[in-house]
Parts: sequence; structure tokens; C-alpha cells
Amino acid sequence: MCKQVFTAILFLIGILNLESQSINQNVDQWYNQNEHSIVSKYFEFLSIPNTYNDKDDLSKNALFIENLLKSAGVATQLLNNKDQTAIPVVYGEVLALGADKTIIFYAHYDGQPVNPTQWATGLEPFTPVFITDRVDLGGKKIDFPEIGQRFNPEWRIYGRSSADDKAGVYTIIEAYRYIRNAGIKPNVNIKFFFEGEEERGSINLESILEHHKEKLRSDMWVICDGPMPASGKKQITYGVRGDINVYMTIFGAKRPLHSGNYGNWAPNPAHKMARLLASMKDDEGKVLIDGFYDDVIPLSEEERNALNKIEDPGAMMQGELGFAASETVGKTFLECITSMPTLNINGMSAANTGKLAGNIIPATASAVLDLRLVKGNTVQGQVTRLKKHIEKMGYKIIENEPTDEERKQYSNLIYFAMKDGYPAQRTSMSHPTAKVIADALQKSVYDGELIQMPSSGGSLPLYLFEKVLQTSPVTIPIVNYDNNQHAENENLKLSCLKEGIKSLTSVMMNAK
Amino acid sequence: MCKQVFTAILFLIGILNLESQSINQNVDQWYNQNEHSIVSKYFEFLSIPNTYNDKDDLSKNALFIENLLKSAGVATQLLNNKDQTAIPVVYGEVLALGADKTIIFYAHYDGQPVNPTQWATGLEPFTPVFITDRVDLGGKKIDFPEIGQRFNPEWRIYGRSSADDKAGVYTIIEAYRYIRNAGIKPNVNIKFFFEGEEERGSINLESILEHHKEKLRSDMWVICDGPMPASGKKQITYGVRGDINVYMTIFGAKRPLHSGNYGNWAPNPAHKMARLLASMKDDEGKVLIDGFYDDVIPLSEEERNALNKIEDPGAMMQGELGFAASETVGKTFLECITSMPTLNINGMSAANTGKLAGNIIPATASAVLDLRLVKGNTVQGQVTRLKKHIEKMGYKIIENEPTDEERKQYSNLIYFAMKDGYPAQRTSMSHPTAKVIADALQKSVYDGELIQMPSSGGSLPLYLFEKVLQTSPVTIPIVNYDNNQHAENENLKLSCLKEGIKSLTSVMMNAK
Repeated sequence: MCKQVFTAILFLIGILNLESQSINQNVDQWYNQNEHSIVSKYFEFLSIPNTYNDKDDLSKNALFIENLLKSAGVATQLLNNKDQTAIPVVYGEVLALGADKTIIFYAHYDGQPVNPTQWATGLEPFTPVFITDRVDLGGKKIDFPEIGQRFNPEWRIYGRSSADDKAGVYTIIEAYRYIRNAGIKPNVNIKFFFEGEEERGSINLESILEHHKEKLRSDMWVICDGPMPASGKKQITYGVRGDINVYMTIFGAKRPLHSGNYGNWAPNPAHKMARLLASMKDDEGKVLIDGFYDDVIPLSEEERNALNKIEDPGAMMQGELGFAASETVGKTFLECITSMPTLNINGMSAANTGKLAGNIIPATASAVLDLRLVKGNTVQGQVTRLKKHIEKMGYKIIENEPTDEERKQYSNLIYFAMKDGYPAQRTSMSHPTAKVIADALQKSVYDGELIQMPSSGGSLPLYLFEKVLQTSPVTIPIVNYDNNQHAENENLKLSCLKEGIKSLTSVMMNAK
Repeated sequence: MCKQVFTAILFLIGILNLESQSINQNVDQWYNQNEHSIVSKYFEFLSIPNTYNDKDDLSKNALFIENLLKSAGVATQLLNNKDQTAIPVVYGEVLALGADKTIIFYAHYDGQPVNPTQWATGLEPFTPVFITDRVDLGGKKIDFPEIGQRFNPEWRIYGRSSADDKAGVYTIIEAYRYIRNAGIKPNVNIKFFFEGEEERGSINLESILEHHKEKLRSDMWVICDGPMPASGKKQITYGVRGDINVYMTIFGAKRPLHSGNYGNWAPNPAHKMARLLASMKDDEGKVLIDGFYDDVIPLSEEERNALNKIEDPGAMMQGELGFAASETVGKTFLECITSMPTLNINGMSAANTGKLAGNIIPATASAVLDLRLVKGNTVQGQVTRLKKHIEKMGYKIIENEPTDEERKQYSNLIYFAMKDGYPAQRTSMSHPTAKVIADALQKSVYDGELIQMPSSGGSLPLYLFEKVLQTSPVTIPIVNYDNNQHAENENLKLSCLKEGIKSLTSVMMNAK
């Protein structure tokens, strides 16, 4: 009896493995035959600057994506909101005869700002190049291979958005191109939705979804964004944290002053900023703002069980990233990023440091924060708590440059502004379509188990799909975890392109 | 009897006034006749970049100064140290027949680094221009006047070192040019000493003085550097604070990390820097480092009396500079800058702020401090206290980029470096030659009293003149207080050129 069950299980594993092998082998073969043109085209895509807010550059990207889709046989359309004020979404659809299910694939084509001087020597954000390994590990630049020459899957493609998130856009389209070229008829309707304002906080996504509600009906959104786990294992993610950006500037004298001639007397806004920031978080990683953790809804039992099944990559990554102690004392990596809100300094500045430093008292000091939210947190709630804390520290909050009158009246003046933020979102791990997609993705896994992650640490405004369309999303990350996304030296491991195409092909073919 | 004394006093005042009037009128007349060429030449001088450490540019400045001196009939020489490792001093001398006193006039020709992007629109650090008023008060750029057109003494000359300290170099030379052109024979030996490494902490000044000890024998050094008081009154200063620069960098992960995917887990060096800096000074301006004030030698009774005679400009400047409360609670401006050491943040940085900010956890955070010293403080003493404090806060101090081993071993790593610092110096207000110079300077004052300041807030390594040459210095500041020295938008009020020449002429003619 026991033996029979065992044999049956082995048989089932055999079928699954065969199916996996066949998808993987076929896509492999097609990819290997076409690698030169697939990668060349990707380089071309990465050469188009895509800093968020730059309308002209972004419309060049949109045009490029439309052409990609058209060449894969997909009818395209640009979607805007009612007022036509958004950077448009590039939309495409392929309706399957008699299909009763629709899956929408999402990625975004805009990127974070770049400061080219911070990139490693020889790297330019919008001139993609191959490097043999990570630049900080001694990788060397190499020429793009001639046709017929070998590509090494360990190579990295360096350039802004190589990982975040042109990789998402490109692998989704190339996965569909494979299906079409192979003559496979999808058994679900497939829709493509490529946003151009994600790095800007998706400020118009809601009005776009609202304006195209009918067209965007679906059973599930599949989001292709964010990094795979450090182990390199394939993963499905059921949620995201929310995010708010806050910009603060503290004012000293109207102009920088000589630190000798005015030192001890003129107020130093850098010192004030240091004291204010220090008051917000202790050296065990705990945020000291009143009520900061009050709204948090803890993980459900199902989510906590799923998390417990994942090997925590903290120790491994810590060695590789080079630090001796994590910020939050007593919490694992997975707890830190899934179940707790953050208050993080993105950047801080006052006058100059290094060779440009002068003996002065700076006139202003600035800091940019981001606050990640988990389920339960609201944007308004967290911002209000932060503002109350700043006021408690003796500051008068202003929303413009201070007037002479304000300078005279208040000892501590702070400019405070926020970019539209958004809350966290979590899809239930028991959602039926989510289960179908997880199973479909599992088919592209060679061996071992797909990682099922209750929430990523990163953010996307996925709550909008629930709010406007009453549809839940899941996320399939496809890029290497060490991609330097949002920072200088962003890069994509070449192997991620092929594996990403395999994952998405598998979902498109098996999501019925 | 009383009446006779009174008459005698009136008579003496009359003589003094007559003498003042005559010097002032004669220099006025000469300056007004030659203003176009005097100012043109100064613009030419300011066009030569002079960032400290830039050997090539500094040697162009030295050559320019030598030519200026030669054209005023002064024999010149470049002085270096024994090892020939310094940026040379431009030296000149005029020996007076039978003179038994020698005065050396000092200024420096190197400047602080520039960050052109921080300068106001239309201003370039090394393209001097006339602006009708301070740029932040709405001053407008105007063309350089044609020959015969009027110059307005309220105009500002914008450019790096327009105030600090090419103004010193230039007015000293032009004062002597006036004397020579007027056929006046000086009755003291006059020497010129223009340093090229002051902004670099005068790292070779000691070895230069040592190497040219004989040539540099004198009765007094007259230092022409730093700003006049905000009242615009003429001043003689008997001392300076010392100065130390400290460069610190705190390390997080080896590379910037996505603030969502790693937030709460990866250590944030900006938060650490904020906490470290906050631990150094409280919000009443008190430095919290153990023993920071222990060595301070308070002002003498004579110095305190002199200070009490000066109207404190704090309240007036505070209104103009636009802040409601000074940094140190309960101390006047004059106390703050003369009698207390400082710990000041010159600059602070971590990743980017403003539009370039990304949603990241910075990899490093840096700060530059300067510590001003007063009499009694030693460089070693203050630096040791600072380092002990940093260690007490849990940091391992390193002097290079951290190794992988160090990253693994220490939770808190800080790079710490200092530029050679130097102590404070104060010349006794009863020094006989100092009294002669003060009297000589008084003659260039139209009315009212010369301000006698025991110490400036700024720094110069004047202790070296005492240490190496056993000679004391006094300082005669000639530039407007609101000159933005060391920062962007440095400027000189045109009237300071003429008044500076008058002051120095008066000293050169009357210092016997």
C-alpha cells in the first residue's frame, strides 16, 4: 500500500518533470537560436533614456515597446486617463477563442533618476554594456559578441532599468513571441499593460484604470517587477509594501557663513537635521515616532507558515554585502521586509563633503525619507505621525521657502513635502487563480520548490487593482537580487533574461 | 586751566584730523584717477583659478603677483621650504634707508574649492563680474564701465577669492604703489609675504619660515585677511582661533540597496551618521564631548574690557541673516567667536537628495567637521577627545576603506582623517609695535574709533610667527563681512578696495 502510493507519487513527479523539461527545452532551444537578436534588441531598448517625468524620452520608450508588441503580432494601444494628463500606458491584447479567463501582465518602462558621476568608471546609465561579472567584484567590460559567438549567462548587462523594470517589459513580450512563433494557441486571454509612471509613484494609475475599467477586466494581474531571492530560486509573491517619500529641508542663515567668523553663533542646519533624524530611530532599528507600529496587521497563520518554509537568506547576504550587524536587532531578514513598516533615509545633504568641502556653516540641510507601509498602515496615518513628531521636536513645518517673517518668528523651520504615497496590498495565498498561476510557474522550475512569499519588501501600488477593478495581483520576480536597482551601476544577469522568458511562457501556456 | 587743557586737546584732535584728512584725500584722489585700471587689473587677477592644491593654477597666480610687485618697483623672489615641496610664497621687500623697524605684510593667494553648480545663475567662480548689489538681495549684473564712466562703490565684485584673500594681496600691493607713485619715502622696511597654501592649512608655512628665518626678521607681521565687522568700521585684531578639519565616513552595505527589498534589515549609514553627529552637540549649542572645554584659557581682563567696548553686532546681523535664535544659548556674538572652541559641520552627504534621490539605503554617509580652537586648546587634545567620543559611541575607527575582514568584525566602522590643524594665537594688546600700528591705522579712520578686537573668530596659523620667528602678528581686515567667503557667491564690495588701500597706506607711512 505504502509502496503503491510511493510509486504513484513517483509517477506524478515524472509527469510533472517531463512537462517542465519539455517547456524548458523548447524555450531554451528557441532562445539559444535567437540570442544574438534578442539581446541586441534589449540593448537598443536600454539605450533610450527613461527617467521618470521626462515625457519626451518616455514617449520614445513607449513607441519602442509598441513596435516590439506589433512585431510579435499583438495589437497595441496607448491608454491614458480621462484628462490625458498621464504618461501613457502601452497596452496590448491577444484574445483566445473560447477562453473564459483573462490574465494581464504588468511591468513598467520608466526608471529612477541617474547621477552619472556616481556610476563606476566606464559605465554610462544609458549606454548598456556587457561586463564579465559585477563591477565591484572585478568584472571587465567586453565587446558585444559577433553573430555566432557565445554568450556567457553569467555576464551582466549594465544600464539604468536593465533590471527595474525593462527586464519585466521585455521578457513578457519575448515570452509571448516564443508562443506565437511556436504556433501555440494560448487558452487564456492575454493582456499587456506597461506603465510609464511607476517610479513617480504611479500617480495616474488609478485614473487610467478607472477610465479603462471594461478593457481591463481580468481574473488576475501578473506583475513582473522586483528581484528574485538571493538564492536565485524562482518565486511567486502575494503582496507588496506601500511607500511614501518625504522631502525635508531645515534652514539656517540665509547664506552659507564662514565657520570661523560665525561659528558657535549662527545656527547650523546640518546639526539640527542630524538631531532630528537621530530622534526618529534608535540604534536597534526601532522607529521612535509615537504610534508608528500601532496599525500593523500581523501576517496570517497561512502567511506565517509560508514564510517559515523559506530559508532565510539573511546570513548569506550579510556576508556578501559586507556588514556585521543588521539594522533591526532580533528580527530575520524575511520578517524585516515583510511584516514591518520602515522609516529610511534615502539621502542626506548639507553643503559639500570631500574635496569640495569648505570651512562654512551650511545655509540648509536636506534629507529624503521613504516610509514603507505594511497591511494596516495608511498613508495619512504614517505621515501625520511623522509630522507630529517633527513638531514635537520643536519645528514649525512650512510648505515653501521660508519668508523673512517666518525666519524671524521661528527658531526651527522645516520645509516638508511628500510625494503621493500608497498603501500595502496582499492577495490571499488561497486565491484560486493565484494557485493556478503558482502551479503554472512551478512547471518552469527544474527541480525543487517554487518559493511562495506572502509579501515582498518592495512597493508597487497594487492596492489599486483591488480598489478600482476588484482584481487581485500576484508578482513574479525575474531579476537577480544584486542588480543595484534604483542606484548607480544597475545591472541584469544575462541568465535572467532566458529564465524570465521561460517562467512567463509557462504561465501564459498553463494559466487556464 | 581746564579750558587750556581742553583747547590743547582740540588742537591735537585738529592735527590728527588734518593728518587723517590729508592721507585720505590724497589716496582718494589717486584712486579715483586710476580706478578703471586698478579695478580692471583686479578682475584680471580674479580670472586666474586658484583652488588650493592646484599647482599649475597657483603658479599662474604667483607669476601675476610677481609682475604686480615689479610694476610697483618691488624686487621679488619665490620662497620655498628646504625640500622645495611647497607652493611657493611670493616675497618682496623695500628697504628704507636708516630704518630701524621692519613690518611684513601678509596675505594669501590660494582659494577654497568651488562647486560652480551652487553659484547663482549667471555667476562663474573665475569669471569676475560686477553686480549692483548682493545677488540674494536682487543685485543685477552690469557691464564693466568704459573708461571715464562712473564706478559705484556699492557694487559688488563676484568671484572666488574676490574677498578671501586676493583682496588682501591686491590692496597691500596697491597701497605701496600709491606711496611710490606719490614719491613718499617709507621710514620702515616693508616686506611682502603672499602665501599659496593657506586654504590647505598652511601645511608648509613653518618649514618656509624656518628656511628663511633671517630674511623674515621683523618687528611685526600685519595680516590682511578676514572680514571687517558688520558695522563696516575699521578694525585691528590681535588674535585668531586655531582650526582642524576632520573627514568622516560611515559604512553600510558594500553597495546602495533598494530601500524596499532591504529596508529594516540593511544598516543605514545615514541614520548612523545622524545619531553620531547628534551625540556631539545639544540643541543649546553645547558640545557634549567629554572635556571639550577643559583647556580653554579665558580672555584676560584687558581683552575682556576691549571686547566690552565693542557694540555687539549680533542682533543686527541676525535680522539680516534671517534666523530667530543663535546656536549657543545665552552668549553674545562676540563671546561666541572669540572665547569658545567650536565643533561645526561643514558638510554632510549620503547618496542624493532632491530630484536625484532614489528609494535606496545609502552605502556610505560622510561628514566634514571643523573644530576651531581658542587659546589653551591643542590640536592633539581636541582630536583625541573627538576620537574617544566616537569610540565611546561604539565605532571602530579606521584610516582606509574597510577590508572585508573589518566589515565582518565591526558593526560600526568609521573612516576618520584630519587635515593638519593648528592652534590659536593672541598678541598682547599692550605690545608696543601693535600700538604703533593701531595708531597708524587710526589715521585712516574718518571719525570715531578704531575697533580693537582681542581675537577674530576665523583662523590663520599665526602661532607660527611666534613659534619660529618670535614675532607677533596683528590683523587688519579690509573686506565686507557679507562676502560669502569659502562658499558660493563670494563677493567684495567695491568700496572695500579703496578703503583697504587707504588703511594699508596709512600703516606703511606711519608705522615708525
